[in-house]
Amino acid sequence: MTNKSPTASLLIIGNEILSGRTQDKNLNYIAKGLGEIGIRFMEVRVVPDIHQTIIDTVNELRNTFDYVFTTGGIGPTHDDITTESISKAFGVEPKINDASYAKLEKYYKGELNEGRIKMAILPDGAIPIDNPISAAPGFYIENVYVMAGIPNVMQAMFDEVKGTLKHGSVLISKEIKAYTTESKISNPLSDLQDEYDNVEIGSYPFIEGSKIGVSLVFRSDDESALDECLAKMNVILNEQKAV
Amino acid sequence: MTNKSPTASLLIIGNEILSGRTQDKNLNYIAKGLGEIGIRFMEVRVVPDIHQTIIDTVNELRNTFDYVFTTGGIGPTHDDITTESISKAFGVEPKINDASYAKLEKYYKGELNEGRIKMAILPDGAIPIDNPISAAPGFYIENVYVMAGIPNVMQAMFDEVKGTLKHGSVLISKEIKAYTTESKISNPLSDLQDEYDNVEIGSYPFIEGSKIGVSLVFRSDDESALDECLAKMNVILNEQKAV
Repeated sequence: MTNKSPTASLLIIGNEILSGRTQDKNLNYIAKGLGEIGIRFMEVRVVPDIHQTIIDTVNELRNTFDYVFTTGGIGPTHDDITTESISKAFGVEPKINDASYAKLEKYYKGELNEGRIKMAILPDGAIPIDNPISAAPGFYIENVYVMAGIPNVMQAMFDEVKGTLKHGSVLISKEIKAYTTESKISNPLSDLQDEYDNVEIGSYPFIEGSKIGVSLVFRSDDESALDECLAKMNVILNEQKAV
Repeated sequence: MTNKSPTASLLIIGNEILSGRTQDKNLNYIAKGLGEIGIRFMEVRVVPDIHQTIIDTVNELRNTFDYVFTTGGIGPTHDDITTESISKAFGVEPKINDASYAKLEKYYKGELNEGRIKMAILPDGAIPIDNPISAAPGFYIENVYVMAGIPNVMQAMFDEVKGTLKHGSVLISKEIKAYTTESKISNPLSDLQDEYDNVEIGSYPFIEGSKIGVSLVFRSDDESALDECLAKMNVILNEQKAV
C-alpha cells in the first residue's frame, strides 16, 4: 500500500460524549468521507472541555498528521472553548472575523448580542467555513479544521471543505461473508496476508440470528492484487467446505 | 466537584472503526457504566491495528489514568494483535492461561486447533475476564482491562468487571429543556457557572422539527448545590420569557 496518501486525525471535544449523554455520530461520517478521497484516517481522540487538554492534544495531532479535524465547542456558551483553545495552540489572538460578522448580522437581521458576536470570533488568521444551517461558522487554520458538534451542521461543514483537501490513493474495499468461524480460517488467512503485503485483510466475526460467520474485508489501492487475493480466499473456503 | 474519584480512559483498537465500516457502540456503553459508579471518563482514543501504536498508547494511558479499557483485537486471526501488543507494553511474555485453556477445551468439546488455542494465550500475569457468549476470554493486567470488540461480548465482560472497580462519587445529572437559543442565554449562563464551581453546566442546542431549543445539563455530586443552580436557571428563563 502506498504511504504517500495524506493522513488525518479527529479530535472530538465534548463532555457530553464522555458522560454518555450523547452517542457520537461524526466519527463514522468523517471516516467514510476521508476514505472516499484517499486520506488515511489514523487516530481519533475524545477529550473533555478542558482548555489545556485541548491545546496540548491539538498541538500533538497537528504535528503528527497532515490534517486534524475537530468537532464540538464552537457555540456561544461558556462551555464552548474550542476557538479560544485553538487560538492558544497556535499562539494567536481570537478576533472578530469581518466576513463572519457580516453573515451573522444578516442572519440575525441586525440583532447581534454578545453571544452572537462570540460566534464571529475566530483565531487571527483563520479562514471561516460556511455554516448553511445556523450561520455560526467553523474555520480552519493551517492544517486544523474546526467544525460544529451537531451532526447535520458538521456534515455540511465537512462536505464544504472535503473538495479542497489533498487527495490520496483510494483504497478499494471488497468483502466475503463466510459462514465459518475465525478459528477455522485463521491459519490460511494469516498465510494469505503474509503473501499480499499490499492488501489489508480484516476479519470480523458476526452473529445473524442462530448463524455465526465472519466478514472478511480486503482493502487495497491495487485492484488486481485485491482480486487475486480474494480469489485465493474463495478457494480456501471452498476447500474447507469440501473436507 | 471532588477530584478524588478514579479516572478512566478507553482505547478502541480497530481498522474497521477508522475505515468507517463499523460504527462504534462500545464508547457510549462504557461511558454510561463508568458514570453509574462514579468513575470519571477522561479520554478515548481510536487507533489502527499497528503494534507500536497500541503499545505506546497503552503505556501513555495506563500511566495517566487509574483505569484503561481496551476493545477489539482479541480474536484468533492475524489482525488480532491486542494481546501481543499489551504483553509488549508490560514487558511480559504471552503464554497459555490454564484456566482459559480448560474453558475453551470444554466449549469446543476438546476440538482445539491453533486458532482456538491462541485465544487462551494471555500476557503472563494477566487475569482472565469471562466471556459468557463465545468462551474466548478478555483479561486484565494491573490497571488495563482488555475486552472484545463485538458489542454484546464487550458488554458482558464490562459488566463482569464493573463491580470490582474502585467507585467514586456519582455525578447527579439534571436537565432543563429550554425553547430558546444559546446566544440569548449565554451571558446569564456563564455568570451562573462562575457562581457554582461544583456544578458542571453543559449547553447543547437541538432542533425538533421546526422548533429549536437548548438542553441545559447540570452535573454535580452535590445535589443541593445542583438543585439551587437549577432553580436559578429556571428564574432566568422565566424572566426572559416575561420580557
